[in-house]
Amino acid sequence: MIRLSLLALVPVAPALHYLFSIPPIWVFLAGILGIGVLADWIRAATDQLARHTGPAVGGLLSVSLGSVAELMLAMFVLAQGQPSVVHAQITGSIIGTGLLGLGLAIVVGGVTQERQTFKRERAGLLSSLLILVLIALLLPAVADFTARRVTHPGNVSLNDEDLSLLVSAALLLLYVGNLVYTLVTHRDVFATGEAHEAERAWPLWQCLAVLAAATAGAAVESDLVSGALTATAKALHLSTLFMGVIILALVGTIADLFSAVWFARQDRLGLVMSICIGSSIQVALVVAPLLVLLSWLIGQPMTLVFENPLDLFAIAGTALIVNAIAGDGETTWFEGVLLIGVYVVLGIAFFFA
Amino acid sequence: MIRLSLLALVPVAPALHYLFSIPPIWVFLAGILGIGVLADWIRAATDQLARHTGPAVGGLLSVSLGSVAELMLAMFVLAQGQPSVVHAQITGSIIGTGLLGLGLAIVVGGVTQERQTFKRERAGLLSSLLILVLIALLLPAVADFTARRVTHPGNVSLNDEDLSLLVSAALLLLYVGNLVYTLVTHRDVFATGEAHEAERAWPLWQCLAVLAAATAGAAVESDLVSGALTATAKALHLSTLFMGVIILALVGTIADLFSAVWFARQDRLGLVMSICIGSSIQVALVVAPLLVLLSWLIGQPMTLVFENPLDLFAIAGTALIVNAIAGDGETTWFEGVLLIGVYVVLGIAFFFA
Amino acid sequence: MIRLSLLALVPVAPALHYLFSIPPIWVFLAGILGIGVLADWIRAATDQLARHTGPAVGGLLSVSLGSVAELMLAMFVLAQGQPSVVHAQITGSIIGTGLLGLGLAIVVGGVTQERQTFKRERAGLLSSLLILVLIALLLPAVADFTARRVTHPGNVSLNDEDLSLLVSAALLLLYVGNLVYTLVTHRDVFATGEAHEAERAWPLWQCLAVLAAATAGAAVESDLVSGALTATAKALHLSTLFMGVIILALVGTIADLFSAVWFARQDRLGLVMSICIGSSIQVALVVAPLLVLLSWLIGQPMTLVFENPLDLFAIAGTALIVNAIAGDGETTWFEGVLLIGVYVVLGIAFFFA
Repeated sequence: MIRLSLLALVPVAPALHYLFSIPPIWVFLAGILGIGVLADWIRAATDQLARHTGPAVGGLLSVSLGSVAELMLAMFVLAQGQPSVVHAQITGSIIGTGLLGLGLAIVVGGVTQERQTFKRERAGLLSSLLILVLIALLLPAVADFTARRVTHPGNVSLNDEDLSLLVSAALLLLYVGNLVYTLVTHRDVFATGEAHEAERAWPLWQCLAVLAAATAGAAVESDLVSGALTATAKALHLSTLFMGVIILALVGTIADLFSAVWFARQDRLGLVMSICIGSSIQVALVVAPLLVLLSWLIGQPMTLVFENPLDLFAIAGTALIVNAIAGDGETTWFEGVLLIGVYVVLGIAFFFA
Repeated sequence: MIRLSLLALVPVAPALHYLFSIPPIWVFLAGILGIGVLADWIRAATDQLARHTGPAVGGLLSVSLGSVAELMLAMFVLAQGQPSVVHAQITGSIIGTGLLGLGLAIVVGGVTQERQTFKRERAGLLSSLLILVLIALLLPAVADFTARRVTHPGNVSLNDEDLSLLVSAALLLLYVGNLVYTLVTHRDVFATGEAHEAERAWPLWQCLAVLAAATAGAAVESDLVSGALTATAKALHLSTLFMGVIILALVGTIADLFSAVWFARQDRLGLVMSICIGSSIQVALVVAPLLVLLSWLIGQPMTLVFENPLDLFAIAGTALIVNAIAGDGETTWFEGVLLIGVYVVLGIAFFFA
Repeated sequence: MIRLSLLALVPVAPALHYLFSIPPIWVFLAGILGIGVLADWIRAATDQLARHTGPAVGGLLSVSLGSVAELMLAMFVLAQGQPSVVHAQITGSIIGTGLLGLGLAIVVGGVTQERQTFKRERAGLLSSLLILVLIALLLPAVADFTARRVTHPGNVSLNDEDLSLLVSAALLLLYVGNLVYTLVTHRDVFATGEAHEAERAWPLWQCLAVLAAATAGAAVESDLVSGALTATAKALHLSTLFMGVIILALVGTIADLFSAVWFARQDRLGLVMSICIGSSIQVALVVAPLLVLLSWLIGQPMTLVFENPLDLFAIAGTALIVNAIAGDGETTWFEGVLLIGVYVVLGIAFFFA
């Protein structure tokens, strides 16, 4: 019901833009909300689609289609020639679910429970993957720096592209390996017991129709949002980087934030961890590499070379603090506060830098 | 008894300075010892004061007043226009207790016990806080670097100040959250069982009188020490940074070193961890932010932007090695040797750089 | 038997070089294989020698003599005036066993076993030592950067040498401490139960004769390999750094790769960990410091200042991912895939940078 009624938000941005002559900031904000709603519909349709297949194919579908709305927005921003804003959006998605989402969920869960626990084994895998994320996203920047300053100063942009393409392919392969691991060979350990039997299953045509319609809608909204980005940043006296890391990132994270808090209240911390940390990991190991490949196909190449040191620092900080907190298999309210605190402090730094 | 007799060291530095015309190096060394003794008295008085209140208020008092001597010395050094020496002093306090103090205690404890154990839960919190320290102290430097080199080269010193003030406020709030957590909501887990019933309780007037007198004394000594700093560094052929990181830092750490070794011999490793790691954390989350706020109030602003990469590296290294060693809830003599080894190696680097 | 027949590879490189006029690339490759074989013989002789002494002296012998072939090759490369290639070789040895060797062994072991386990206590020590490696190899670079850019720009190469010598001495002392710890005071915990009773013990004269002959042979081959290095790199269109990190490093790691896979098939994961991680640690804490000392004695000084940021990043990444994977005391096939993935991604970066 809630999901249906939220659809009313979708036509607001196009209406404001095409029917009224209104400052772009309103189009921007309405568009962000619209994409957020459509992203949630796309995920719902993908989950339903997965019920028509086995869990392994379903997992693959869910990963490749679940982030279509974020990808769409990023592609339109990229088409505006702003790769650094897309990098900021990727960073923002990682810290948005990994720090803010997880932190809020832990605090909400910690209000009623003195301590919440989850399987250490699952935490161990998430922890290793977070370190992989850290290495994968820092590596191209380090290699670029090395080539530029140390080994052969000069034009290295061509190399950056090849390096990014190869690293992206490797990350996607590793993610496929992870799916085989969690959905096939070690399925019992990672079963989250997420029950959606209560919901009515959609027929196949409905899944596909919703996917197509929501994707088309997301494209329209993304066009409006990316077009209004610079004007909105100016109106709010904010940098486009700050907009990317805090606001554009909401598109991919807002639905996760709500689910995480929802499951935390039901004391299902394992599921909360999978959603929040899993979402951060998916952004880094799937969304970012896909963007590199897609952007190269459309001839508007984006590399994996994050040039803003703050992006790299935020990703590294998230990996380390989440590892420290998830390492012992249990959480208390203060650990949630710590995560939110780190998010706030990073936000302050992005505001000033 | 020992504490009383150590008071005899306090008047030495003023006497040397005002009565005799003696090289400043002796005034400096005597002053350091004097502040060390007064710092211990201030902590004793604060602990006593805490017995007149509940544990929560007591904890808050102990945190805010316990480091008055260190703060005093840092403020005087700052008034001499040497913020980088204060940064070195902060770094030195962190590595002094976190590496040297903890290492010595573990070695001393390991001589008699094959292995010493402590509650993993407590270690988990310390570990998370150490990572917060790492993020908090590196972040301003990264943001400064970003603003200076990447986004808008030019004058960014004003921004550094605002950023440091906001981050400092956030850190102090997080530390208050930590006190609520350890002293109120999850008090049972963190009770150290530190018994001081044997000691006679001081009446309230005595606590306040000792606090006032010791603080005044520390101010006098700090004035002498900061005045003699540059001349002493020159006489010893050492940089002022090395003096800050190794010698000035002793003021805040010497008492902790003795307590840590003392409790290690009694096989109370949990308490040793709380003292050493807790002290490192407190310097980063309380002393450094307070210095930023105080220095701004007196119009001689110090930022949180640690400009010396070695300071940042030393803090990061301490956080990582302490995490690796404390992570499994037990220690052996070699782990203590490792901590001392890292301290020595860092000291060598500070000497050369 | 295998070991004996492999000896046939040793005379190939000298024959190719002195008897035929053949492109240097074939001499280079044959020389690498020859040194690899001799390195294995040197290790075998050292292990045999250790059986004539107690375990403590044996451990010391094994550490100091076991890496003679790698040291020899590095010294000849150094004599060619290429310290950065030696740095690459050191990095390559660390990631070669720590990532590739361990990863292959875990995958091979994971094919038959759903999960393999090992003592967490031993993992804890390896984890702490890896962090020490990280600190020790990054520190000189940070100190050099600090001195060069921040405190006193100018000629700092003399300081780098003194710093490297002192840090090397400290690392060697810490390694001796580690030997005392694992072979004397806490021997029971670290006993690997590696049985070599089946093999016939060599008499003392045979140990010494094999050591001397193999070392002399390694010197001859190393001379040929280092002489053919630049020409081979040019013929293969590769940088000498890439050659160092991927190919020269094989000399020290190839035997470990085979042993690790061998023991993984026997489900002896604890031993695999000791071999792979232990070998990485030994390269950093023994081979690198010894090279600094030896290179200084022969008047061709090499410092510990790794100037290639990718080297530092590869070492840091290895320490972090191995820690994340080994931390929980058990492994599955996907963790092995992750390690190999990180190795591949680092290799790609070394190729482009």
